[in-house]
Amino acid sequence: MASPSIALLTDFGAGIYVGAMKAVILGIDPSATVFDITHDVPPQAVEEGAFLLAAVIPFLPPACICVAVVDPGVGTTRGALALQTPSLSFIGPDNGLLSGAFSDAQRSAAAATDAAEPAPMPLPPAARAVRLSNTRYFRQPVSNTFHGRDIFAPVAAHLATGVPLDSLGPSVDEVLVFPPWRARAGPDGTLAGRVLSVDRFGNLVTSVRASDLPSSGMTVEIAGQHFQGLSRTYQEGPEFVLYIGSSGYLELARRDASAAEAIGARQGAPVLVRPEAAEQGASGQERRP
Amino acid sequence: MASPSIALLTDFGAGIYVGAMKAVILGIDPSATVFDITHDVPPQAVEEGAFLLAAVIPFLPPACICVAVVDPGVGTTRGALALQTPSLSFIGPDNGLLSGAFSDAQRSAAAATDAAEPAPMPLPPAARAVRLSNTRYFRQPVSNTFHGRDIFAPVAAHLATGVPLDSLGPSVDEVLVFPPWRARAGPDGTLAGRVLSVDRFGNLVTSVRASDLPSSGMTVEIAGQHFQGLSRTYQEGPEFVLYIGSSGYLELARRDASAAEAIGARQGAPVLVRPEAAEQGASGQERRP
Amino acid sequence: MASPSIALLTDFGAGIYVGAMKAVILGIDPSATVFDITHDVPPQAVEEGAFLLAAVIPFLPPACICVAVVDPGVGTTRGALALQTPSLSFIGPDNGLLSGAFSDAQRSAAAATDAAEPAPMPLPPAARAVRLSNTRYFRQPVSNTFHGRDIFAPVAAHLATGVPLDSLGPSVDEVLVFPPWRARAGPDGTLAGRVLSVDRFGNLVTSVRASDLPSSGMTVEIAGQHFQGLSRTYQEGPEFVLYIGSSGYLELARRDASAAEAIGARQGAPVLVRPEAAEQGASGQERRP
Repeated sequence: MASPSIALLTDFGAGIYVGAMKAVILGIDPSATVFDITHDVPPQAVEEGAFLLAAVIPFLPPACICVAVVDPGVGTTRGALALQTPSLSFIGPDNGLLSGAFSDAQRSAAAATDAAEPAPMPLPPAARAVRLSNTRYFRQPVSNTFHGRDIFAPVAAHLATGVPLDSLGPSVDEVLVFPPWRARAGPDGTLAGRVLSVDRFGNLVTSVRASDLPSSGMTVEIAGQHFQGLSRTYQEGPEFVLYIGSSGYLELARRDASAAEAIGARQGAPVLVRPEAAEQGASGQERRP
Repeated sequence: MASPSIALLTDFGAGIYVGAMKAVILGIDPSATVFDITHDVPPQAVEEGAFLLAAVIPFLPPACICVAVVDPGVGTTRGALALQTPSLSFIGPDNGLLSGAFSDAQRSAAAATDAAEPAPMPLPPAARAVRLSNTRYFRQPVSNTFHGRDIFAPVAAHLATGVPLDSLGPSVDEVLVFPPWRARAGPDGTLAGRVLSVDRFGNLVTSVRASDLPSSGMTVEIAGQHFQGLSRTYQEGPEFVLYIGSSGYLELARRDASAAEAIGARQGAPVLVRPEAAEQGASGQERRP
Repeated sequence: MASPSIALLTDFGAGIYVGAMKAVILGIDPSATVFDITHDVPPQAVEEGAFLLAAVIPFLPPACICVAVVDPGVGTTRGALALQTPSLSFIGPDNGLLSGAFSDAQRSAAAATDAAEPAPMPLPPAARAVRLSNTRYFRQPVSNTFHGRDIFAPVAAHLATGVPLDSLGPSVDEVLVFPPWRARAGPDGTLAGRVLSVDRFGNLVTSVRASDLPSSGMTVEIAGQHFQGLSRTYQEGPEFVLYIGSSGYLELARRDASAAEAIGARQGAPVLVRPEAAEQGASGQERRP
């Protein structure tokens, strides 16, 4: 049977750091299938990295070993984890980056609000996690600033070759997890969210979920500007297009241009969704299902 | 026998979209060899993507399955294709992006000029194409904005595992194709072309082909500036260097710097090649064969 | 036994050039495991490319074939090499880029100073090298400007399939090598070095080695600004952090930001390390071992 694949997500960009991780992996498991999720997480943006990882998790191959490294606390006392769910394995720092390994229901316990800080929460019954401490599976010497190369990559490769999870270190019962990305509903039905990520096209991905949108029309305010109507494709609407993106969140695009540049919005910008009264719902673009 | 390789070309840049496609492919065909042609096609630049793909096609491995996604019309009524030539397979939107699968002779029929719009043209006898419609080979649910992940990637992986082309959908007889990239010759022998692409070094790749260059000397005008002489390497000439690039087109480089920045030219800038009378041919740099 | 892996390092950036090299490799050796070290070497920066390659070499898998292309002299009379050490193979231009294949002791003979120019030096006994000249292993026709695709990639693939080094061309006894990257010690104990590279985070990697640092405290001057104290992680220190990077060189980071931007320093900026007298050593941050 083929080795499981190893997927990498980091904020290392285009330099040599990812190459060094791949070199270490292939030195331990020459038959590994290594692929990149992305290395373009903004530097040290742990929560955005967690969100981007969560967006790809539903598509990962069975038994995939996912190594994620956005790790401003590298070399400090922050923990390092290997975590297994019934279908996937995750390796990375214990700083919230692996939040997507948990379901929303599990993560809801972590905090009451759409906070940007991770909180400790117990592992669900189906998952197992260990703190990486068995130096036998590290590359020696371990640097203080590059655990991706010296700890996470070699541990992933050893896991791919069949080393059992329990060999990597002692079990842990709690890990740091971000609350679900989801806009909060106010008493008047207004949803208050934020921009979670900006993609290569300048499309703004918000924390507002399709399932939370009002069933009648709505006005969406992002970075102080107002947009109406929900489109199905980028080609609808004269300029700006609101639509449900490929991860199930409300997004704003500008036709053939960057919405982020056009309205001066970036990661973290506030997003408000105000339902329209039924009699006002006919304005703007047609609502599609 | 090894699976055929799967090559990817998109305008998705460095974010998670390419990673999601690879995850889907490896979930269907764990033994697939996936590699990147480029993901740096300028956003939504269908013609430039087609040109860049065409430049790499002669080098693709036998039986390679090439997935190309530059797709501003995603989710609209634009078609989606799988196309097979005797040596390669192509999967992508029917918007001209796959033009390089056809020979120049075939593409010349598509339009009379160096136009930037694709036109429908019949498939040559040796090629077969189907419209992707069999949802059995799609990933469900299919999003409206990310067919790369939900249609093109899984179809490519199924093709790699041996699913026959005909299973993917009904045959089509016509696909959209850009005319050949080639400068037009005026009555006085002047060639009128344009800049097709700018590479990482700031080198300008023009639509003027080596085989169309005048046999005597020439003056080349790009973005209103004039250049003379044809060099063989980047090290010749004091500053700017005209040379035949690795795809057979006339290019302009600036020694140890970016020609594009230096003269303020970008994709689409007009290029004029004027033949010199023989008596003037001695000026500028020596012409090499 | 699996084929050896093929690692690529270039200054080709995100465009199609790397994809063309991979296509050529997989056309010759469909079972090759190809991975990227980096393609983000600054354009035509041969010495920085050599430094970055040297930083990854200790981590390459056994028998790895490393193809490196930073090659402003492509198409001129500069040589092209394949070089084998007991554990690795290297393929690239003979311009100093492959310096990391040699030990410091070997490279010290190349020049007396921390010069930025490579010098010819004899091969050590354990290494073998040939000048690439057997066109049978090239892709035809060979372009003048893209030997990565037409010479280096196909030669690497043939080597991976078992073609012996000696078949590639005649032996060479000397190759161009940069002197070791190492700050010079002045008579008063001051170390004079420079910034060798800036990474994605804006961290400045200097030519000052950990082993050369004064055992008492020190003041470090980079681009005219002064820093003190040596930290172990990015989280120490209020703003700027001096630390030993993952390749054993002194680095400067700015906490959660770019040190390069903050102080306006780039590759080549001068670095001075002045030892402090013991009685002054208590200022600044605590020194860690």
